[in-house]
Amino acid sequence: MPMKAQWPSVAIVGVGMIGGSVGQALLSRRLATRVIGIGRSAASLAAAKKAGAVTDTSLDMAAVAGADLVVVAAGVAAIPDLLEEVDVAVRPGTLVTDTGSTKASIVAAWERRRRSRHGRFVGSHPIAGSHRRGPAAANAELFAGRVTVVTPVAATPGRDAEEVGGLWAALGSTVYMMPPREHDRMLATTSHAPHLVAAAVAAATPPASRAFTAGGWRDTTRIAAGDPDLWADILLDNAAETANALKRFAGQVERLLSAIEAGDRRRLVTLLKRAKDNRDAVGS
Amino acid sequence: MPMKAQWPSVAIVGVGMIGGSVGQALLSRRLATRVIGIGRSAASLAAAKKAGAVTDTSLDMAAVAGADLVVVAAGVAAIPDLLEEVDVAVRPGTLVTDTGSTKASIVAAWERRRRSRHGRFVGSHPIAGSHRRGPAAANAELFAGRVTVVTPVAATPGRDAEEVGGLWAALGSTVYMMPPREHDRMLATTSHAPHLVAAAVAAATPPASRAFTAGGWRDTTRIAAGDPDLWADILLDNAAETANALKRFAGQVERLLSAIEAGDRRRLVTLLKRAKDNRDAVGS
Repeated sequence: MPMKAQWPSVAIVGVGMIGGSVGQALLSRRLATRVIGIGRSAASLAAAKKAGAVTDTSLDMAAVAGADLVVVAAGVAAIPDLLEEVDVAVRPGTLVTDTGSTKASIVAAWERRRRSRHGRFVGSHPIAGSHRRGPAAANAELFAGRVTVVTPVAATPGRDAEEVGGLWAALGSTVYMMPPREHDRMLATTSHAPHLVAAAVAAATPPASRAFTAGGWRDTTRIAAGDPDLWADILLDNAAETANALKRFAGQVERLLSAIEAGDRRRLVTLLKRAKDNRDAVGS
Repeated sequence: MPMKAQWPSVAIVGVGMIGGSVGQALLSRRLATRVIGIGRSAASLAAAKKAGAVTDTSLDMAAVAGADLVVVAAGVAAIPDLLEEVDVAVRPGTLVTDTGSTKASIVAAWERRRRSRHGRFVGSHPIAGSHRRGPAAANAELFAGRVTVVTPVAATPGRDAEEVGGLWAALGSTVYMMPPREHDRMLATTSHAPHLVAAAVAAATPPASRAFTAGGWRDTTRIAAGDPDLWADILLDNAAETANALKRFAGQVERLLSAIEAGDRRRLVTLLKRAKDNRDAVGS
């Protein structure tokens, strides 16, 4: 039975893996009837259309004027300027969100001029990345069973936050609401510092040792295959929290190492057991 | 067409995931007609038989007297004593190897009394572990397409090293020969230090943050689910090289962090790119 589309027309600015997945998820769940992909490259817009991620495409940001909801799905460094462009072009009252992996600076940039905004912006971060890229890697079920953090601030009307939360819930996510800084502190621990650690393990492995790597090394370093430009922007944008998280991590390395150097097997087993418990609690 | 079994009768001391896989691989490739599983637990010997990893079982080390080849597949801390037990029970001239993840101390313990040995021992390390355990996790193709390091010393007759290398090659491995210390130095970089890093990331993640982990965290920490007792023994046995490898790793973290703290995007991208190149060279 056909449902009434919740946002008849949605614009997605940036049709990579995440933006493409939002489009596919909206269309496959009949939450939107029209999805306008907006980007700077005709080739990736064509790929998004081929992937069933969008129904319409435009190289012109003015196309957001036709949308009830705008999702900006770009690298974190590009999002603040894109939000400015979106805001001058949307119809007044249009709901706007983004999918950036950091939130404090993106939200602060928008909030600085809240009084003069046309759109109603609330930041989002669907925690569903991967080291794959581009609209061909899009997946309508990318957000199903995953967590999305929505980051309202004190000035955000409750209904705006609820409406953005409702978008991600409709795509299958569990939604958490928290202030942008809290999000960035949390993600420094669960994503940004681990990324840097994985990159350091990969970088510390000389080519001559590569033949002697197995599943453990491959797992530990997998995320280091992510896009250096995208990750540099994330790490630079969340530098202070990432550095803090790395300090906690370095403290754990120090404890493990001192147990090893003291030959204290009981303490080493206790520390490894605690790490295993934390790991096992998350699942494969 | 039936091949002549190369080692008609093989004894496997310790029928866990690795020992069970050796048994399955020998039998499925018809390299042995009889595989005697030797262990301390009747239950795990029964499980190994059920898994098709052994044809015979014994709780008594004396059973190695019936073997042409003995493979000791136990945790690294147990291997030296097991090799002593094996050596007093084998027929003179029997080929003996092990599968321990460290080699210097195991080989040194055996070599200390080379002149009075009955068996012909050469150490091995099939680099094909996993965080899974027990004979039910055994897999006849575990060693196929993987690397096994064989670690002769100066006193090892060439034909002994070749024969042990031939075993792993027959199970599908690419075989590298290197001295035990060289093996331990290499594996500290590719396995032992990464294990400790994965454990530290898992330990540094507070329970309240678990909901905000995604694929990156799960990959980076996967190996931390490994058995704390087995890994404690590996790390303690290779303490000095693991500490050295961790220093190189910490140096890479420091370089990444200083680029982040200096806001030097170009340098950060260069470092992440180098890590990605190292990772991409190994494959998924």
